[in-house]
Amino acid sequence: MGSAQSGRLFGVGVGPGDPELLTVKAARVLDRCAVVAHFAARRRPGNAWSTVQALIRPDQTVLRLEYPLTTEASHHDEYERRIAEFYAGAAEEVAAHLDAGSDVAIVCEGDPFFYGSYMHLHCRLADRYDVEVVPGITSLSAACAAAGEPLVSMRETLTVLPGVLPQEELAATLAGADAAVVMKVGRHLDDVRQALAAAGRAGEAIYVERASCTEERILPVDETDGIDAPYFSLVLVPGRALGQRGDP
Amino acid sequence: MGSAQSGRLFGVGVGPGDPELLTVKAARVLDRCAVVAHFAARRRPGNAWSTVQALIRPDQTVLRLEYPLTTEASHHDEYERRIAEFYAGAAEEVAAHLDAGSDVAIVCEGDPFFYGSYMHLHCRLADRYDVEVVPGITSLSAACAAAGEPLVSMRETLTVLPGVLPQEELAATLAGADAAVVMKVGRHLDDVRQALAAAGRAGEAIYVERASCTEERILPVDETDGIDAPYFSLVLVPGRALGQRGDP
Repeated sequence: MGSAQSGRLFGVGVGPGDPELLTVKAARVLDRCAVVAHFAARRRPGNAWSTVQALIRPDQTVLRLEYPLTTEASHHDEYERRIAEFYAGAAEEVAAHLDAGSDVAIVCEGDPFFYGSYMHLHCRLADRYDVEVVPGITSLSAACAAAGEPLVSMRETLTVLPGVLPQEELAATLAGADAAVVMKVGRHLDDVRQALAAAGRAGEAIYVERASCTEERILPVDETDGIDAPYFSLVLVPGRALGQRGDP
Repeated sequence: MGSAQSGRLFGVGVGPGDPELLTVKAARVLDRCAVVAHFAARRRPGNAWSTVQALIRPDQTVLRLEYPLTTEASHHDEYERRIAEFYAGAAEEVAAHLDAGSDVAIVCEGDPFFYGSYMHLHCRLADRYDVEVVPGITSLSAACAAAGEPLVSMRETLTVLPGVLPQEELAATLAGADAAVVMKVGRHLDDVRQALAAAGRAGEAIYVERASCTEERILPVDETDGIDAPYFSLVLVPGRALGQRGDP
């Protein structure tokens, strides 16, 4: 697990966006790492970076890992190849700092092991270095808290689905779920809304955009027609065992 | 939403047990509340209370909400009746402090809206008072971090199930899941293990007990025969899209 001189790698979940939703541990780990790495899209600061920026000192090295420019029109295999190359290159950039003896924190939105890009570096580095993962508040928990919607209780199951799934698959899964959350809704909002309607769950569903951030927006799904949903948006379908007003 | 003189209610997720996994916001909210309420079983301190105890000042009022003594042998309806009475009484104890103008924090393990007892008070008080919920780190996120196991990525779905479900239902759901987590395993460990075997997922499954606490224990499910699993234990079945060592 790395030589005695190697630095230590931390995968740090920084939560959904509100800097107050960082854990005490995440703040401590960020403070001790000489290098702080983060993902970002071209010409954007990166959400995880924006969340922690105020905590970073001038003597710390910031390693910006910028996603390659890809378009929806890119051929699927070409896209996969470029993204895999990017993660491999990013892992080696991080590894170079670890080899030089520096501790590195890779910050990521939400929780590192819950749909996080960090996992692509973790799987390339965890066998070679000492690695510790610091869990974070998921956007899912933040969205329920912001909407005041109890999500799942008692004997209920919870199903979490990415919005990119085909509409028929979404509808079938939503129809059979107790509680459900559709993640990363973004440009799939129309499909998600139609899947909810087909599953008979549209009336209970709540759309939440950028939970905990200043731009937070919460709407019944039935009132989202025509809105331009960002990638960081999700849909909650709370369980019925214990409604906000109901008695068990 | 409460009179102008009423106190404010906070449902505060304190995370999985390690006090460092409290959020900055949870610590701030605890600091400002005159009353800190927590659930506990008879003769036990309560996990949420143990997590935050060191942060509470002598001038703050601690409201211990002690579950009634029930036994497995209790008749189901009788059990339901006593538990409902308990939650109704606990809600009125909290309401009395709010009516007196005190802010009240109800602390709970993990995240308040993710299988939390807090929900039983929330649904009784949210219409009458100003309420804010502070999300917390779930035991699920803490368990994945502790085990170093990426849970769910890319196009995968995640299914979360309570261990109390019938073995056949567990097996059917686990067989169809990409990634899965069985919560509150406890005395259902044998059933869960058999369900995993029936679903063909036992070899990938990891048992985690009291994630992030000093008593944390992590084992392959295949090596858990005969162990006495506590209520706060769970089983992880990581998704296969991105294994720890695999390449996407």
